[in-house]
Amino acid sequence: MNILLSAVGYWLTCKLISLCGEMFVRANLFGVDLCKGTGVKIPESQGVLCGVVFLVIMFLFIPIPFIEYFTNRGTFTFPFHVYVEFLAALLSICCMVFLGFADDVFDLKWRHKLLLPTIASLPLLMVYLVTFDLTIIIIPAPFRSLLGYSINIGCLYYIYMGMLAVFCTNAINIVAGINGIEVGQSLVISASVIVFNCIEMSGEYSEAHLFSLYFMLPFFAVSLALYQYNKYPARVFVGDTFCYFSGMAFAVVAILGHFSKTMLLFFIPQVINFLYSVPQLFRFVPCPRHRLPKFNPKLNKLELSYSRFKPTELTKLGRIILKIASIFKLVHFRKVTVKDCEYEECNNLTIINFFLLIFGPTHEKTLTNRILLFQIVCSVIALFIRYPLARLFYDV
Amino acid sequence: MNILLSAVGYWLTCKLISLCGEMFVRANLFGVDLCKGTGVKIPESQGVLCGVVFLVIMFLFIPIPFIEYFTNRGTFTFPFHVYVEFLAALLSICCMVFLGFADDVFDLKWRHKLLLPTIASLPLLMVYLVTFDLTIIIIPAPFRSLLGYSINIGCLYYIYMGMLAVFCTNAINIVAGINGIEVGQSLVISASVIVFNCIEMSGEYSEAHLFSLYFMLPFFAVSLALYQYNKYPARVFVGDTFCYFSGMAFAVVAILGHFSKTMLLFFIPQVINFLYSVPQLFRFVPCPRHRLPKFNPKLNKLELSYSRFKPTELTKLGRIILKIASIFKLVHFRKVTVKDCEYEECNNLTIINFFLLIFGPTHEKTLTNRILLFQIVCSVIALFIRYPLARLFYDV
Repeated sequence: MNILLSAVGYWLTCKLISLCGEMFVRANLFGVDLCKGTGVKIPESQGVLCGVVFLVIMFLFIPIPFIEYFTNRGTFTFPFHVYVEFLAALLSICCMVFLGFADDVFDLKWRHKLLLPTIASLPLLMVYLVTFDLTIIIIPAPFRSLLGYSINIGCLYYIYMGMLAVFCTNAINIVAGINGIEVGQSLVISASVIVFNCIEMSGEYSEAHLFSLYFMLPFFAVSLALYQYNKYPARVFVGDTFCYFSGMAFAVVAILGHFSKTMLLFFIPQVINFLYSVPQLFRFVPCPRHRLPKFNPKLNKLELSYSRFKPTELTKLGRIILKIASIFKLVHFRKVTVKDCEYEECNNLTIINFFLLIFGPTHEKTLTNRILLFQIVCSVIALFIRYPLARLFYDV
Repeated sequence: MNILLSAVGYWLTCKLISLCGEMFVRANLFGVDLCKGTGVKIPESQGVLCGVVFLVIMFLFIPIPFIEYFTNRGTFTFPFHVYVEFLAALLSICCMVFLGFADDVFDLKWRHKLLLPTIASLPLLMVYLVTFDLTIIIIPAPFRSLLGYSINIGCLYYIYMGMLAVFCTNAINIVAGINGIEVGQSLVISASVIVFNCIEMSGEYSEAHLFSLYFMLPFFAVSLALYQYNKYPARVFVGDTFCYFSGMAFAVVAILGHFSKTMLLFFIPQVINFLYSVPQLFRFVPCPRHRLPKFNPKLNKLELSYSRFKPTELTKLGRIILKIASIFKLVHFRKVTVKDCEYEECNNLTIINFFLLIFGPTHEKTLTNRILLFQIVCSVIALFIRYPLARLFYDV
């Protein structure tokens, strides 16, 4: 039934995206593809259609898992703890789709982007508190002599989960800028989660993994539909809405499916991108408004984009980081002279630019595919870490 | 605690509205006051700020009613059925704020405006089903010999509640067009509900009425803040967002507080407006895009606005309705000749124009106050019907 509804979701999303494009352009929600040089107005924030279709499907789907209760009333008591999880999950996702859309319309400030997701995840954390409330972490075998078998980190665990929601939403948002990359990575991650859930369905916590599947299948379907339109050459853009939507969807299933650590393993490329971006995100190195690669119309390829600044604009810490990183050839850091002024520049610190640094100028489509391939490889590694390797450290 | 948070909400809404005006104008969300003739750009859809502040406050408030459980863990089982109600209510409200905002940005079609609120109220209806599930209506005393003491209308009751959500959202939306009227009526209705809840707090269903109070107090606070800015002369407009938000807030407390019939009594002016509008809403009589009164700059007063059409454009049913209504002086229906063409025209069928029909041209501020006064009188009548009169028909 969930698969059937997911299929309906795929069809509905395709339909809506093809119908509504003009409506978005009319409402001033459009972008120009900076990596094409054509200047055509392309509808933005189509992720909101994805999100709405997803919510509608989930609303229609809600009664299905409880069908047993409705057909045998009186014999069962209603499983309130499951229904609470559904509602809290949908509430958080709905808030994030809304927030993402507001961000597309208004260009919100950073502090709102950090504060509001935290508030939106409160009902979710409270559900975790009253249904599961396991805040114990198992210590890996080598450290057990020091720390014991497990520690209850209590409140810290809730802070960790709250930060997970913020991390997921923003981690996807900063791997962006070329056609199909935001949706592509979400597709790979959700497929990985689906595979993981299917493996675990035979295990002890099958209920939690079934819950996760209920969310991930429609999510995969609506994202796939969006990918058809967003892949190179993009006919629509996904907007911040989609990144917020997908980030929260992952955070929700990770928290309520009780596999937040495994989820982080599927986010390895995003974590790498985040770490690589840290010097720019925290302004150790000056950061321009957009960090996407530069389009070279002669070659029809994308090239490294640089952040150019006067030597005085670079912080001391930034200089040390860039110097060390350039020794290991992780960044391109150089001096340039423009109109008799001395500048320094380094490539923008994103995983997308890092791929360009390694492979040289690349066609946009190839670049996206390479990064998605990397994401797939990372997911396979993640599953390897999760299963054979974890046995070494934890005696499962 | 709820009152304290409501006060915070009032302050926060004021603050946000005064800060964000320019941001809305920049995002193309502004309107021009058609009843002023100045042409100044006034920020639109400020209701979204109201809605967001309301949601944030409720998210922060959620744990409070369960504090007893957290302080005495183990002795109580967690009251899941209450928490489920909170989440479903917030989910529905969040969806509607989102939908309203989307409507402001995109100008959605009528079929979406009817379909989406229905879907958004599904989780709510399911909560009603699993917690209360009382679908019996008590028959008024005079009819009991025919129909018995009560009838279980089952499924029909759920359809009625689903329609309540659609009705409330649209009923407030169509009493609009002059400064402060949308927020003003919502303030009166919510104040009436608060009074009603306080009266009932001593009664049998105190828990349900307390639940309603938890929602209505912050709602009243954020609406009051918005009213400060929206009252004549309006510095901001509320947008469809606010109408959807307030309509759903009322539907939610009516359904989960189990007083949907009493709630309808507080909607008497909206019901009158709806009935008066029927000929235009269902297109028996041609209906222009805007039906707000006409501004007369010479008098600085508002006058009746007319819908003008060729005699052939009027349906047969429409003609009969207008003829009968004009005998009772309920509408102004007349023939006009413009540039040798014969036209007919009747005043636009809204309660606002009806007040102008009775009292003649009126200043905008006076008109709003008169209608709000009418709403207050209706609320007093409603409470009279609910208490002394109901005793005649139902032996309470």
